[in-house]
Amino acid sequence: MKTINSISNMTKTTVRWRQKGLSVALVPTMGYFHEGHLALMRMARSRADRVVVSLFVNPSQFGPEEDLDRYPRDLERDTELAKGQGVDCLFSPSAGEMYLPGFQTWIDVEGLSQGLCGASRPGHFRGVATVVAKLFNIVRPDIAVFGQKDFQQLQIIHRMVKDLNMPIDIMAHPIVREPDGLAMSSRNYYLSIEERKSALSLSQALRLGEKMVADGIRSGQDIIQAVRDHILSHTGTKIDYIFLGDPEELEECQEVHGKALLALAVWVGRTRLIDNTLLEG
Amino acid sequence: MKTINSISNMTKTTVRWRQKGLSVALVPTMGYFHEGHLALMRMARSRADRVVVSLFVNPSQFGPEEDLDRYPRDLERDTELAKGQGVDCLFSPSAGEMYLPGFQTWIDVEGLSQGLCGASRPGHFRGVATVVAKLFNIVRPDIAVFGQKDFQQLQIIHRMVKDLNMPIDIMAHPIVREPDGLAMSSRNYYLSIEERKSALSLSQALRLGEKMVADGIRSGQDIIQAVRDHILSHTGTKIDYIFLGDPEELEECQEVHGKALLALAVWVGRTRLIDNTLLEG
Repeated sequence: MKTINSISNMTKTTVRWRQKGLSVALVPTMGYFHEGHLALMRMARSRADRVVVSLFVNPSQFGPEEDLDRYPRDLERDTELAKGQGVDCLFSPSAGEMYLPGFQTWIDVEGLSQGLCGASRPGHFRGVATVVAKLFNIVRPDIAVFGQKDFQQLQIIHRMVKDLNMPIDIMAHPIVREPDGLAMSSRNYYLSIEERKSALSLSQALRLGEKMVADGIRSGQDIIQAVRDHILSHTGTKIDYIFLGDPEELEECQEVHGKALLALAVWVGRTRLIDNTLLEG
Repeated sequence: MKTINSISNMTKTTVRWRQKGLSVALVPTMGYFHEGHLALMRMARSRADRVVVSLFVNPSQFGPEEDLDRYPRDLERDTELAKGQGVDCLFSPSAGEMYLPGFQTWIDVEGLSQGLCGASRPGHFRGVATVVAKLFNIVRPDIAVFGQKDFQQLQIIHRMVKDLNMPIDIMAHPIVREPDGLAMSSRNYYLSIEERKSALSLSQALRLGEKMVADGIRSGQDIIQAVRDHILSHTGTKIDYIFLGDPEELEECQEVHGKALLALAVWVGRTRLIDNTLLEG
């Protein structure tokens, strides 16, 4: 496995692959790999001749009060983990190379970026869409793999690719969970032992929502109330949002009929966690 | 020469060319070709194996009060003219195909889009940047050719390509003029015989600015005043802006030292015309 830091070397490498008729898959990440990332790499590995994993903690998707500085980093460990999954190239550019002086071009996926995480993290999805478009242009993959934990991000990338006619297939991988149900996240690393217990309330609340719908309950208000009550019964939790609505347009619904997205963002101490599930009403 | 209307056929065509190792040049236009467009096509013809001319009157770059509906169109004439320049493919998609229902992704080149034409045409350059990015993704050219008459547009495209790492060389063609100096434009077609005379004041005013700088005058205020006086001495003219400043960052300057852009937008009756020149102080 090669590690590449420069944009021009990355592009040269994939252009050479393409000239040989090899297909390329990209897995964009912010590093500090967990089993969720490794599952994305395995999916990429099974779908393309060459796999590039980008590792870039993108400053433009963090707000001024957010955890950019303390976001966990361990390049050496990440390198070994990626190697273990048969990744061909780890692309790890510096912020200075990704955002040259005078940088001023931004991509907005307007409607889909408004609610959910977009409401509490203004500018976040603008940063995500922009850096993903840059990575697509640098690596020029045939396919790119994203996790469903960041469901809103996934829908925004889908929409951007469609709206801007980007020649890339987007693949989604289901959420990977710890044995007790907690969705894998690099931010779980922030949690104390006590917080780790409270964090379990997110996935439990989603299972509760699923059970209510399976039991025939259709009222969005009732489901959201039960989810809220469950989470708030745990120490140190604070709800950012509980969303129930259409998974495509991300518009809230009053009743669950057909497919619906139940998505959460919850503060556990100083750590903001997200999780989601698709309901079938 | 082929005419292609569908996005997927366009992409298939250039993918096939690329597989054969052929280079591709794109000339994005809104049609109603004049000698300026034909010069861009010849430049493209001389630099690549295959030339695609896109013809799309892009609704998203027109304001609600602007001339989208009356913008001149003549596909039959344009087809003959493009054929005459050895163009391989005329790509002429419908607005409905370029902007699918639910379209919501926009590209902003923030700083460069603020002043000059951006100030009087809010949203114009957002529409331009977005449609050009779409055309780049659909056609996937190695090079793209733009005219220097739309100088601000050219700088915005340059910046977008750099910021988003688009794998495309941007080439600029000097302004092509009528024998009497009027910059070629599809909008000249709107002018009455009387207006056509007044329209000449733009290029005359630019020549006046060039002469002042050649004569050693450095004061931006003096140059702008002389340019303004000359234009307003013609019937039916109204100045939108006179800009004198840095050609890269498009920031105004008080004195001309080194390279400076002198750019104009002037209403002649109901028609808004633009023109510019590079000064060397």
